[in-house]
Amino acid sequence: MSEQRDSEGYGIRDEETRPEASPIPHSPVPPSLTTFGPCTLSNLGPGFDALGVCITGPGDRVTAYVTDTPGVTVEPGGDLPTDPATNTAARAAAHLLRQSGARGGLALRIEKGIPLGSGIGGSAASAVAGAWAANEALGLGLDKRQLVEAVLEGEAATGSRHGDNVLPALFGGAVLVDAADPSRYRRLAIPDGLRLAVLLPEVRVLTHEARAVLPKTVPHADASAQAAALAFLLDALRAGDWEAAGRAVMTDRLAEPFRAPLVPVYGVVRRAALDAGSLGCALSGSGPALFAFPDASGRAEPVLAAMRAACAASGTGATGWIADLDAEGVRTLTP
Amino acid sequence: MSEQRDSEGYGIRDEETRPEASPIPHSPVPPSLTTFGPCTLSNLGPGFDALGVCITGPGDRVTAYVTDTPGVTVEPGGDLPTDPATNTAARAAAHLLRQSGARGGLALRIEKGIPLGSGIGGSAASAVAGAWAANEALGLGLDKRQLVEAVLEGEAATGSRHGDNVLPALFGGAVLVDAADPSRYRRLAIPDGLRLAVLLPEVRVLTHEARAVLPKTVPHADASAQAAALAFLLDALRAGDWEAAGRAVMTDRLAEPFRAPLVPVYGVVRRAALDAGSLGCALSGSGPALFAFPDASGRAEPVLAAMRAACAASGTGATGWIADLDAEGVRTLTP
Repeated sequence: MSEQRDSEGYGIRDEETRPEASPIPHSPVPPSLTTFGPCTLSNLGPGFDALGVCITGPGDRVTAYVTDTPGVTVEPGGDLPTDPATNTAARAAAHLLRQSGARGGLALRIEKGIPLGSGIGGSAASAVAGAWAANEALGLGLDKRQLVEAVLEGEAATGSRHGDNVLPALFGGAVLVDAADPSRYRRLAIPDGLRLAVLLPEVRVLTHEARAVLPKTVPHADASAQAAALAFLLDALRAGDWEAAGRAVMTDRLAEPFRAPLVPVYGVVRRAALDAGSLGCALSGSGPALFAFPDASGRAEPVLAAMRAACAASGTGATGWIADLDAEGVRTLTP
Repeated sequence: MSEQRDSEGYGIRDEETRPEASPIPHSPVPPSLTTFGPCTLSNLGPGFDALGVCITGPGDRVTAYVTDTPGVTVEPGGDLPTDPATNTAARAAAHLLRQSGARGGLALRIEKGIPLGSGIGGSAASAVAGAWAANEALGLGLDKRQLVEAVLEGEAATGSRHGDNVLPALFGGAVLVDAADPSRYRRLAIPDGLRLAVLLPEVRVLTHEARAVLPKTVPHADASAQAAALAFLLDALRAGDWEAAGRAVMTDRLAEPFRAPLVPVYGVVRRAALDAGSLGCALSGSGPALFAFPDASGRAEPVLAAMRAACAASGTGATGWIADLDAEGVRTLTP
């Protein structure tokens, strides 16, 4: 089967060699749209596997073309798998394509703005961008609640159908998820005004390693303390009580104590944030990303500066930014 | 030292035998007031040691008399200890008396409306009634937030300074408590309209036995599920989503599975509540009390009737009632 390249460099199949006619009219430069999947903080403090928030910052872009070849194809590039089974964007899009019963297919170009293994939901950002791109490009008109299954299915390409990144990335804001059944979730109302310092040290944490270091059992007292801390965090966030929320994110007995050793700069960066007045600092996801609440006067900039400096002093490069809550979640980029 | 009885039958010391003059004027029938400490549901579903709510129903009454004898004395009666160190009402009152620096003392008469070992906060009801009686009788004018230490100190007479009964009994409504430091708490706003069926089987559960059956460690997955369930419960209660709240109270991996065997009728009563359409049913405290959410149409009466019938069919007597949330907490009874 011969291929040609369109002006964007994307491989499309030659119409002449298609075995069947398609209901979708062929055009030499197919119409496309680009979606943006935002980054997310997950495992928020005591919210292991349960609580994630969508924040401003880097994200993944997916450009989708409607094709007349059935199925979803991924433009090769970077480290990303092109097999739809193991590519979160393609898997989410393929789920919707199947569900819709549409003939024809989708070709996706994925631009990773979030490094893999960063702890801020890179695979989820691609999954939601892929699902949204399919929804828009195929004209399915589904609302975001109707995309939950597709984004969970997309995330499952990583080997784990967890919802604490994909659901906040889909809806925006904060989302509580039932790990045992991630199709059960609650969107949480959080007042405006929270700003966070986010630091992404140049350390890669492998998700399966981060899972492997978790203990099989924990003390009963730690389990009850964790539950109470998550409840405090939830209520403090809802009330806009950043001081109590910051204190609550520092309580994690189920993940952070075991995962911190995988991030060599964890201790110095966290210490620096707190010394700079941050109300609370913790790992996001399984790290290496760390986020920190601002100081009591609401300033996040000095906190970020201190985190950057501590990381640099340890000889580790890092990207950092001040994040707001992203209330919108996945979206189409206006051309 | 001779004693006389006032018209209420309470023993007061004879003025003539007092060794020191008192600044509090003596009167043959000393002024008194009576306070009401309400019952509370605690360990609410996944809220082990963390979440309690104040409900309508039985409560304890404390009548306080100002005396010119220093310290707090308790009128003997029932099973209650009269030593202020081990009587929750007296201990709470003594704390306030010491704190206030007032000369003279207090004599307390305690009427238990809540059986001990019932799981609906009997010791806490007395503690808050004792604290409130001291506050009012001594004219201290403290607001409820200023009584937190006193009621925790009162509850400590049971051997455990836990806050998940005393704090809701003090403030009314629902309260989240940090078990490690119960002076940290958050009062939760819950919309009106929740009605619960409460059944108190005639079975006594000893708190220390209920503690002893808890395992030292729990699976990591149970700990994270518990935390998420408590977060779901909190948000569902806040939103008035009784269906989700009912489902969430059925998830408890830290206490109920281990304590249920101490309440022989647990299984049949819970099954009966659910079969009658209840959205969720669980133990309160360490039992034997069980509470149940109403059915999907909001009716709690058929649920209570089914629970009663199941308990009776097992040959166990029980008291039951339909409870509303008590938003007021401890209060002075108007004469």
